Amino acid sequence: MAYNLLKGKKGIIFGALDEKSIAWKTALRCVEEGAEIVLTNAPIAMRLGEINRLAELCNAPVIPADVTSMDDLENLFSKTLEHFGGGVDFILHSVGMSMNLRKGNPYTDTNYDLMHKSLDISAMSLHRVLQTAMKMDAINEWGSVVALSYIAAQRVFPDYNDMADAKSMLESITRNFGYQYAVKKHVRVNTISQSPTRTTAGSGVKGFEGFIKFAEKQSPLGNASADQCADYTVTLFSDLTKMVTMQNLFHDGGFSFTGISHAVIDQMEM
Amino acid sequence: MAYNLLKGKKGIIFGALDEKSIAWKTALRCVEEGAEIVLTNAPIAMRLGEINRLAELCNAPVIPADVTSMDDLENLFSKTLEHFGGGVDFILHSVGMSMNLRKGNPYTDTNYDLMHKSLDISAMSLHRVLQTAMKMDAINEWGSVVALSYIAAQRVFPDYNDMADAKSMLESITRNFGYQYAVKKHVRVNTISQSPTRTTAGSGVKGFEGFIKFAEKQSPLGNASADQCADYTVTLFSDLTKMVTMQNLFHDGGFSFTGISHAVIDQMEM
Amino acid sequence: MAYNLLKGKKGIIFGALDEKSIAWKTALRCVEEGAEIVLTNAPIAMRLGEINRLAELCNAPVIPADVTSMDDLENLFSKTLEHFGGGVDFILHSVGMSMNLRKGNPYTDTNYDLMHKSLDISAMSLHRVLQTAMKMDAINEWGSVVALSYIAAQRVFPDYNDMADAKSMLESITRNFGYQYAVKKHVRVNTISQSPTRTTAGSGVKGFEGFIKFAEKQSPLGNASADQCADYTVTLFSDLTKMVTMQNLFHDGGFSFTGISHAVIDQMEM
Amino acid sequence: MAYNLLKGKKGIIFGALDEKSIAWKTALRCVEEGAEIVLTNAPIAMRLGEINRLAELCNAPVIPADVTSMDDLENLFSKTLEHFGGGVDFILHSVGMSMNLRKGNPYTDTNYDLMHKSLDISAMSLHRVLQTAMKMDAINEWGSVVALSYIAAQRVFPDYNDMADAKSMLESITRNFGYQYAVKKHVRVNTISQSPTRTTAGSGVKGFEGFIKFAEKQSPLGNASADQCADYTVTLFSDLTKMVTMQNLFHDGGFSFTGISHAVIDQMEM
Repeated sequence: MAYNLLKGKKGIIFGALDEKSIAWKTALRCVEEGAEIVLTNAPIAMRLGEINRLAELCNAPVIPADVTSMDDLENLFSKTLEHFGGGVDFILHSVGMSMNLRKGNPYTDTNYDLMHKSLDISAMSLHRVLQTAMKMDAINEWGSVVALSYIAAQRVFPDYNDMADAKSMLESITRNFGYQYAVKKHVRVNTISQSPTRTTAGSGVKGFEGFIKFAEKQSPLGNASADQCADYTVTLFSDLTKMVTMQNLFHDGGFSFTGISHAVIDQMEM
Repeated sequence: MAYNLLKGKKGIIFGALDEKSIAWKTALRCVEEGAEIVLTNAPIAMRLGEINRLAELCNAPVIPADVTSMDDLENLFSKTLEHFGGGVDFILHSVGMSMNLRKGNPYTDTNYDLMHKSLDISAMSLHRVLQTAMKMDAINEWGSVVALSYIAAQRVFPDYNDMADAKSMLESITRNFGYQYAVKKHVRVNTISQSPTRTTAGSGVKGFEGFIKFAEKQSPLGNASADQCADYTVTLFSDLTKMVTMQNLFHDGGFSFTGISHAVIDQMEM
Repeated sequence: MAYNLLKGKKGIIFGALDEKSIAWKTALRCVEEGAEIVLTNAPIAMRLGEINRLAELCNAPVIPADVTSMDDLENLFSKTLEHFGGGVDFILHSVGMSMNLRKGNPYTDTNYDLMHKSLDISAMSLHRVLQTAMKMDAINEWGSVVALSYIAAQRVFPDYNDMADAKSMLESITRNFGYQYAVKKHVRVNTISQSPTRTTAGSGVKGFEGFIKFAEKQSPLGNASADQCADYTVTLFSDLTKMVTMQNLFHDGGFSFTGISHAVIDQMEM
Repeated sequence: MAYNLLKGKKGIIFGALDEKSIAWKTALRCVEEGAEIVLTNAPIAMRLGEINRLAELCNAPVIPADVTSMDDLENLFSKTLEHFGGGVDFILHSVGMSMNLRKGNPYTDTNYDLMHKSLDISAMSLHRVLQTAMKMDAINEWGSVVALSYIAAQRVFPDYNDMADAKSMLESITRNFGYQYAVKKHVRVNTISQSPTRTTAGSGVKGFEGFIKFAEKQSPLGNASADQCADYTVTLFSDLTKMVTMQNLFHDGGFSFTGISHAVIDQMEM
């Protein structure tokens, strides 16, 4: 069901890999809600994924950009400004990658060059996007930026590896740049802390299936799906949430405030 | 602008006193978004206020209820179920009152009978509403309950008196009953922690005007208005936020995560 | 091992029931560290427990007081001031009781009169103690007050019932009265949020044994014992922690910031 | 006054620059409390500072180490193990530096190479220290590691620049490595979030003097001094706090939970 919540709005969606991606579903929902969008992803992710199919569905241009390259980001915003004939109203940052995690390096035997990469791709990239946008004045007054995070930013999930530190930093950048962009141009910046989600990216985490089941049991409403995350993101891009900024918003069926559920107690046969 | 976000939904709005009330504005916005509503308030508040005017604007019945009376609440839900021919989809709890604060009793010289009253009216009332609703099965699957809170639940604002303790308890009930209602019927319960707002109720707080100015300077987007709070509440009643529960959601222009703003630094001429 | 950390200090210990009590062990530790103390408990708890044995071990007077009675509290402080010939330097508040929990009333079918009692005994009692002490100027400059709390104040542990709401309110009072007492007389007020502990009081909670095992597995250091809690409390009464106030301090082997431990993952065979 | 709290314990103190340093004062307090220590700092900081004077006062060797160099850290631990003939019981990490801040680069016009440096020196350095220690088994059972943090990790203090992001990451590493080290060897890791302190390092922050005055007014007990921080750190190194881990502990006179103080209200003449 569509409500025209984003009628007339323009936006950029980072990180749609394939149809399981939260970014993919968010792109579709934004268009359904009346927005026009530009799609972007890292050149390598574009080769692996199916972003061109999404581009057709959304009638959207695809502009590749490595989020750790300032040149690429300038090019992205420059082409986007040209494409829309003006600034954007919303941005989805759905970007994260840890080579330490992929390689199976334990957190206590990390490779620090790779950790720098994890931070750059997964956290500093949001700063890079916002700094570039601010310099080029690419986000309209009262624009809305959402980045996807995970509760490992607050509590330890040992298999999440250095992505936990990256998400903490992502949320810190959200607050700190959020303050600056609010003062300068009423742009708001928030993170959504989403339930573990069976995306192609998420599946890379060791023990992910078991973990998703634990989260399902521990969440009184169950895990939030990627589709529901897209719905929620749309509300944050809309004009109905203009005064929400610098927040980390849990979208997780109540997981974040459940110490222990009866479903988990039962399974542990305590 | 309306989006039909609440088309076909029914709800109850507690606490509309006059046109400055957040509840008043939320009632109007819900109706604009396609909902049908029932209005309720304490008998005494109804005599002071202008709820009948709102009832006309919303084409809604008014059913008085003292939130500390289980009989009144049963009567409210019973009549509401009858009126709608079924359960409700949303409830706004905008109720709070401290006689200690009104009488100017300092927090360190409180009257404990009045503190019990503050807690009952401002916090336990949410429990009473939810317990009554659950027993009478008065909230539909995936229904949404929102209560209004304030950041004094987390940090000290000395003039807020025992309402601070009441708001802490309100947010605790939100989590604890939210868990139970999620498990039982997928009903979600959240609080919105709103900027200080120039309502008739808010104005009773000592030093309120000065404080509202501080919050305005400390919030990078400025204070959120009652109208904006109504907008935000609508998103939480909609189907787009189904997996958000047991949360306290700051709607405050970024105040909650600002340690100090440049505007405050400037005013302090530090 | 003793360090003379509390040499010359005087204090009051609320809530020692029997030798499993955290308050019991804290009383002993305080005396070991050089303090003189006064013991107090509710008249009924004194009949059930063995406080007189503790009094002998500590060479301390026992002054009964119902924490919900202002007369009793005034009498307690009056006799304590007389006993010590001056004010006290520390107070331990280890008091909590829920009749709803004892009677097995589910949280969703609570008795509100009993909930008021839970709040009064378990949370407002701290306010009553502090208000009485402040009026009678019974705490010395830079004194330290510690109340025992539990993480159910932040997250849902469904079997903890209305004690969860009481603990939230207890922590709120800690902040709010802590502010007032700091400004007035540099007195600091904090809560310790302790691991679930096999005390006589704790054992009353349904499913407590199972729960304590879950906490043990979920805490990377294991559960903190009552003895360790006594040790930690001593540091907070000492002069080494003078600038810590209005805090909730987790003493739980890391439970509070562990999303899921490998030990729990293993047991769930995920 | 000394209590022999650290009798027989050995430790490493990172970051003592001159006698204003928190690390300097902590080193002295640890020795007063009966500990033996090793001092370390970056080669450049050692040239600027007066660490050799401290070394004499503490009868401690100085082993230079760049915290971003794994070779240096291995050398540090290797020499320390040799010096003590065994592992250490505590470590103080008091290390932080931002070239963006020093150069006056605004947060919205940051240099990303320098941001990587800020992160490496101020946050990843804790990971490097812990990873090296764990590999070399250099911390004894139930050892204690404390790193110094600042509330900019939670809320925005705009002039704190990218150090805010670094402190967020530091606290994340504290949780994540703290979990691992607890499970492996009962080692605990915590941060102390200290009031703004007039150290030589702190003074580099723009508007620091004004800010320290604001914090003084906003803290009901006033700002915590470096000496008091040393006292508090000693308690965390002692055997009395064995079950405290993965925490961020505010040592700030109540600043962290004060929304607004009367002293600030008065100055703003609201």
